[in-house]
Amino acid sequence: MRANIARLQQVCDRAGIANRPHIKTHKSPEIARMQIAAGAVGIACQKLGEAEVMADAGFDDILICYNILGAPKLRRLRALAERIRLTVACDSAVTAEGLSRAMAGAARPLDVLVECDTGRRRAGVETAQEAVALATRISSLPGLEFAGLMIYPPVGGAEETSRFVAAVREGCAGHRLEVRTVSAGGTPNLKEIGLLEATEYRSGTSIFNDRDMVACGAAALDDCALHVYATVVSKPSPDRCVIDAGSKTLTSDRPSLGGHGHLVDYPEAKIFQLSEEHGVVDLSGCERRPEIGEIVRIVPNHVCVVVNMFDELVAVEADGTARRLPVAARGRVA
Amino acid sequence: MRANIARLQQVCDRAGIANRPHIKTHKSPEIARMQIAAGAVGIACQKLGEAEVMADAGFDDILICYNILGAPKLRRLRALAERIRLTVACDSAVTAEGLSRAMAGAARPLDVLVECDTGRRRAGVETAQEAVALATRISSLPGLEFAGLMIYPPVGGAEETSRFVAAVREGCAGHRLEVRTVSAGGTPNLKEIGLLEATEYRSGTSIFNDRDMVACGAAALDDCALHVYATVVSKPSPDRCVIDAGSKTLTSDRPSLGGHGHLVDYPEAKIFQLSEEHGVVDLSGCERRPEIGEIVRIVPNHVCVVVNMFDELVAVEADGTARRLPVAARGRVA
Repeated sequence: MRANIARLQQVCDRAGIANRPHIKTHKSPEIARMQIAAGAVGIACQKLGEAEVMADAGFDDILICYNILGAPKLRRLRALAERIRLTVACDSAVTAEGLSRAMAGAARPLDVLVECDTGRRRAGVETAQEAVALATRISSLPGLEFAGLMIYPPVGGAEETSRFVAAVREGCAGHRLEVRTVSAGGTPNLKEIGLLEATEYRSGTSIFNDRDMVACGAAALDDCALHVYATVVSKPSPDRCVIDAGSKTLTSDRPSLGGHGHLVDYPEAKIFQLSEEHGVVDLSGCERRPEIGEIVRIVPNHVCVVVNMFDELVAVEADGTARRLPVAARGRVA
Repeated sequence: MRANIARLQQVCDRAGIANRPHIKTHKSPEIARMQIAAGAVGIACQKLGEAEVMADAGFDDILICYNILGAPKLRRLRALAERIRLTVACDSAVTAEGLSRAMAGAARPLDVLVECDTGRRRAGVETAQEAVALATRISSLPGLEFAGLMIYPPVGGAEETSRFVAAVREGCAGHRLEVRTVSAGGTPNLKEIGLLEATEYRSGTSIFNDRDMVACGAAALDDCALHVYATVVSKPSPDRCVIDAGSKTLTSDRPSLGGHGHLVDYPEAKIFQLSEEHGVVDLSGCERRPEIGEIVRIVPNHVCVVVNMFDELVAVEADGTARRLPVAARGRVA
């Protein structure tokens, strides 16, 4: 994990882009502190509740990469904006108007990034014209400051994204609006960081990496820092065993990877079926096979959702000393 | 939910089979208490940690449907067996021997059920001969009492299961071993309860039901008692909106259902893609469409894993009064 922290910082440094790690993967103030110590300028959170936990832990520069809507959350957002340097994403006038109402009478404006869809087809305005229009709207609303753009380019999408960003810059310039920040993100596309017209980068998964990151070439198996430890609880036949890690541990994410995790010490084994607390493993390809009671290590398919299952991680140092790390920002409803 | 509790009890009563609801779905002592009040004889848990929480809450007849292995867990199991009427499943001599060591010197023996695989190909001994051999082994070990069988028949598997159970009964009789308990389970196959040679039944999902239970004919949409409330946070195009419920809320379970949940008020909408905190919804089939900021209700694909994501449920009575229900047995590692 420490190597992954250093590597991400190095990649950002080389590209001359600020590192703003996304804490959704680890949800741990202690890990975020290591990332800041390595050179990160601040952190990104996906939920208001995560940002609150991180602010309570002393982080004072947070981007919430999400449209915040609804009076209860907007009240909490305002309270958070009073105590830290907060930036928030927005992709509609409805969101912007809510943010503005929430910030009424605030001493300083809230920094707002226009979320742009540059190919993922998730959230975000779909055209540069819409982005410019929303930027103009934000800058006209009391309590808000248009601070730039938030993008989440798909793998291979750097060129299209750069064209999009350039068009928005040009359009904004025509309205005398500065695009101060361009916040890009994603671990699989981190390799394209140099091709992006970004000022900062959000990477979450790279803190641990996982089977998905190995499959897409963003990491090697040795870069996978988080292991699920499971016990072989049953071996009904020589070709099949059952581990006590099911969908309430490994989750059903990324089924297209074929199998629900990689058994480090039995690489030919395949977790082919999950119940909630059972992982059923095909051992037919294995020369050596685990015994009942044996503890096996698993690199999960998608580490972000696995960490989210647990209240604690166990951090193991190189010298073998271990300690508990609370997943402090887990379990926030919104 | 109250109707679902009554219905399960009725189904069991009609079949003359004891009701032992599985708490893995709700993980709530308060809900389990309602099930006991309706007539359940005890509860089933999937993990030792769940059973400990339930014992702390006053439940004194618990079946742990799982092979418990490893010294730390066996110590906890022994402690639990000292204070409640505990039964535990076992499908190998390795597990049985561990249980026996753990129970050394205990005042009363631990009831052990032989887990039989009658078609699910998960855990469980695969033949009646193996079951009889393990029953014999268990009854020979100090601190243990062979109490019967645990089965988890697949849908349509009642006949095969009954043959299996009958063969084990016969084999056990030859060794003067009584098969006192036959614990069957599963919500989709609850309709076959009358065809099983069972003495008790474990149903978990029926407490709430979900999209999967509707798809397999075990419940109607109106029987789905748990809704996820999500907010529409983005509407990038008329045909697509984004809700703040992603794979960290709805989970990726049951992808074969097509879509990751049912929007109650927009039945033609399809949640076609999940990120961790985004659900992307195809609205192209909808005449009426939700607006940004609107709160939508979702019946999840698989309710058991969704409840497991949260520390609390909100219980709403028929008169509209609402209160928080802690998911008290969530987050236990083992």
